[in-house]
Amino acid sequence: MTDKTDITPEVAVAIDRLRQEVARLHAELLRWRLVVWTAGNVSARVPGADLMVVKPSGVPYDELTPEAMVVTDLDGRLVLGDRPASSDALSHAHVYRLMPEVGGVVHTHSTYATAWAARREPIPCVLTMMADEFGGAIPVGPFALIGDDSIGRGIVQTLAASRSKAVLMANHGVFTVGTDAQAALKAAVMCEEVAKVVHLSRQLGDPKPLDPAAVDRLFERYQNVYGPSAPGATARPAD
Amino acid sequence: MTDKTDITPEVAVAIDRLRQEVARLHAELLRWRLVVWTAGNVSARVPGADLMVVKPSGVPYDELTPEAMVVTDLDGRLVLGDRPASSDALSHAHVYRLMPEVGGVVHTHSTYATAWAARREPIPCVLTMMADEFGGAIPVGPFALIGDDSIGRGIVQTLAASRSKAVLMANHGVFTVGTDAQAALKAAVMCEEVAKVVHLSRQLGDPKPLDPAAVDRLFERYQNVYGPSAPGATARPAD
Amino acid sequence: MTDKTDITPEVAVAIDRLRQEVARLHAELLRWRLVVWTAGNVSARVPGADLMVVKPSGVPYDELTPEAMVVTDLDGRLVLGDRPASSDALSHAHVYRLMPEVGGVVHTHSTYATAWAARREPIPCVLTMMADEFGGAIPVGPFALIGDDSIGRGIVQTLAASRSKAVLMANHGVFTVGTDAQAALKAAVMCEEVAKVVHLSRQLGDPKPLDPAAVDRLFERYQNVYGPSAPGATARPAD
Amino acid sequence: MTDKTDITPEVAVAIDRLRQEVARLHAELLRWRLVVWTAGNVSARVPGADLMVVKPSGVPYDELTPEAMVVTDLDGRLVLGDRPASSDALSHAHVYRLMPEVGGVVHTHSTYATAWAARREPIPCVLTMMADEFGGAIPVGPFALIGDDSIGRGIVQTLAASRSKAVLMANHGVFTVGTDAQAALKAAVMCEEVAKVVHLSRQLGDPKPLDPAAVDRLFERYQNVYGPSAPGATARPAD
Repeated sequence: MTDKTDITPEVAVAIDRLRQEVARLHAELLRWRLVVWTAGNVSARVPGADLMVVKPSGVPYDELTPEAMVVTDLDGRLVLGDRPASSDALSHAHVYRLMPEVGGVVHTHSTYATAWAARREPIPCVLTMMADEFGGAIPVGPFALIGDDSIGRGIVQTLAASRSKAVLMANHGVFTVGTDAQAALKAAVMCEEVAKVVHLSRQLGDPKPLDPAAVDRLFERYQNVYGPSAPGATARPAD
Repeated sequence: MTDKTDITPEVAVAIDRLRQEVARLHAELLRWRLVVWTAGNVSARVPGADLMVVKPSGVPYDELTPEAMVVTDLDGRLVLGDRPASSDALSHAHVYRLMPEVGGVVHTHSTYATAWAARREPIPCVLTMMADEFGGAIPVGPFALIGDDSIGRGIVQTLAASRSKAVLMANHGVFTVGTDAQAALKAAVMCEEVAKVVHLSRQLGDPKPLDPAAVDRLFERYQNVYGPSAPGATARPAD
Repeated sequence: MTDKTDITPEVAVAIDRLRQEVARLHAELLRWRLVVWTAGNVSARVPGADLMVVKPSGVPYDELTPEAMVVTDLDGRLVLGDRPASSDALSHAHVYRLMPEVGGVVHTHSTYATAWAARREPIPCVLTMMADEFGGAIPVGPFALIGDDSIGRGIVQTLAASRSKAVLMANHGVFTVGTDAQAALKAAVMCEEVAKVVHLSRQLGDPKPLDPAAVDRLFERYQNVYGPSAPGATARPAD
Repeated sequence: MTDKTDITPEVAVAIDRLRQEVARLHAELLRWRLVVWTAGNVSARVPGADLMVVKPSGVPYDELTPEAMVVTDLDGRLVLGDRPASSDALSHAHVYRLMPEVGGVVHTHSTYATAWAARREPIPCVLTMMADEFGGAIPVGPFALIGDDSIGRGIVQTLAASRSKAVLMANHGVFTVGTDAQAALKAAVMCEEVAKVVHLSRQLGDPKPLDPAAVDRLFERYQNVYGPSAPGATARPAD
């Protein structure tokens, strides 16, 4: 029996590909203005192994090359790489351990979503694009301090009670999940956009709620067309 | 008698030109920050045929080359192209079928306009640039689910009762029309800008309404200078 | 006696230089996000002549080369150029005729400033950078329709009653003046920035007013260091 | 005994390095949208000397090369350079004189932070990233006019009563300090971001306060991992 943290040749190939992918997606965090300075990170589960590829600690985004990415096991212990993993790696690892269907995790403090998180208020589902992507409101997770499994547990428990792929961690920021890292990034982009639209809409009155049956129809249709079960389509764009 | 969905040599030349144009205008959607991820699309009617050029489904904006654009008939059936048309193509097609004067359609979920749409509240005409471009308030269309003609019908009925080239679809987003795709894009850019200015103005008090006679004079002057009847000028910029 | 609209060799040299300058400053309008689409324009008075260099009508910003800029007299009549002048040229010309100290004019519909203009509300002077640049509140001019001298008269009368180099035209947008076009552009950039800061500050309470004596001291110091009488320094940046 | 404003060979090497660094950081002010026009400046203390490297007065950011940077003593008197120092140099110098642990100072009028400053209202600590970076609320300093030590004194007194590295000067703007110029820039970036998030959060209700014990734990952990006492880590990014 093979140790699931062994680097077999197949796993090595997957790691190479995911280092490219995770490095590229950090640039996307900046492109979509989800982070300032370096306050965000992306990880990807390594298929066929109990490993993940994640951002190293203390490296400016301009230096986030594929080679700089590190590999840890799902307890957050460094397996490959010249630097320690991001201090958020423990939270990512916890999600992968508990949610086998998740292939990618993104963490941001994106501006409008974090403003909702500071009030510990879920974002209500008043937009068809929210129904499509999140299937309802975006929920709020507990307040938790960094340093142990608290944040990871809060993410997993909150997502378990929702169809949403995004969770607002109280007074902190956003975590999103996806079948791969690109899908998690898309959820992070959409989460910030709907956080902004609903914020603005609420400033001048009350957005009209969507009928729950309409939310269900939109979510089911969208997940069939673009979702995990559509061939090769987990991160396919909405048109 | 020729089938209006035949690709005659003249039509083939027009399709080549419009594929270039429609691809270019998708980049403009990003440039003017009207979309995040890939949540927007542009189409153009093919002159002399019952056809349109439209975005394919499931292609990231970075890969939206002219060759990637697809051609459908005005029932949304694929005529040319390697991929299915955008899932919004049915709505675009409906507009072309019912509004012969329309040569271009743009769909976005641009941020401020969608915030008005979530409240199902028209944008009041309190700016000279709104009078110029839209001739009055920007109206709200019905809530409609994607999948059949509902959205297209809502767009056409709402625009028929207004001088506006833009409509806010309830809890959804924006559709704009123009004599060509460039003109529809201009309307989408101006719709988001006036949605933002009027939103901000309302946050701190009540914008002063424009006298309807002034709105009429501005709209008539602007349409004469820049509008459909001015030679070669449908999408000429405001100075 | 020479006609002040004659193109002497000295004037031709100045026109060449100003076409470069005015073309460059249109790109700055976009850089500082003062305009969407092409809804803004810059002009410069030709020293030693009753002429101005101004944006042509109907040219996208990407094509605004120095050669595309046109020259009119101070009644707005075309003197040099292949296209008609911007439809706002009459307003610019009126300012140059009535205000001999003005060497540059900028017109925008910049977002936050236009939001104040839609309420016809002056921007109160609650920031040291407003005192520096504008010497007090930014005033509101009358509602005026395009097409004759009405806008120009409104600008001149409003600026005459204020130390401000910027005026918010009611329900319309912003005009700024300067000793040259670069100084007018700086005023347009600063006007939008203070419009935004004071807007935001007012959203959550009442900004503290500045003592008028402090406003006077800041304005006088700044104009001496950076203002018209400082050698070669009309558009020198604030540090 | 050497005069601490002498340019020894070691000091000359440090100055060369810091001119590069300070020039680069001015470009970062624009990149992170902390300034419009040229309304911001960065300085760095020269190690081993009573000197600082600072922005010259009246130079557009596009021309802010390393060579253009000037050197002054800690009374703000020019020691090296072709131009006068920024008119804010006196305030920077005062900070270096009174706060020996400070190696870099940044001054901006960043938009959201200045909106709080205009109300003379501290930014409450309701985000984990505020606890990390600032250890509590961001305080407000007194209203002070430019021209003497008033601003510098206000900065020093306000920072002395707080763990924050940022201070909002009343009706004016932001000053931040750090162990070097890069750390001060990071504080300026984070100050504007938290100013924006808390502003937005407050617009729709009351952000939940953080427990002071949690603030302490976050601040202490973060300063140990990324702070002055961590090896080579003063400006290390948050992950």
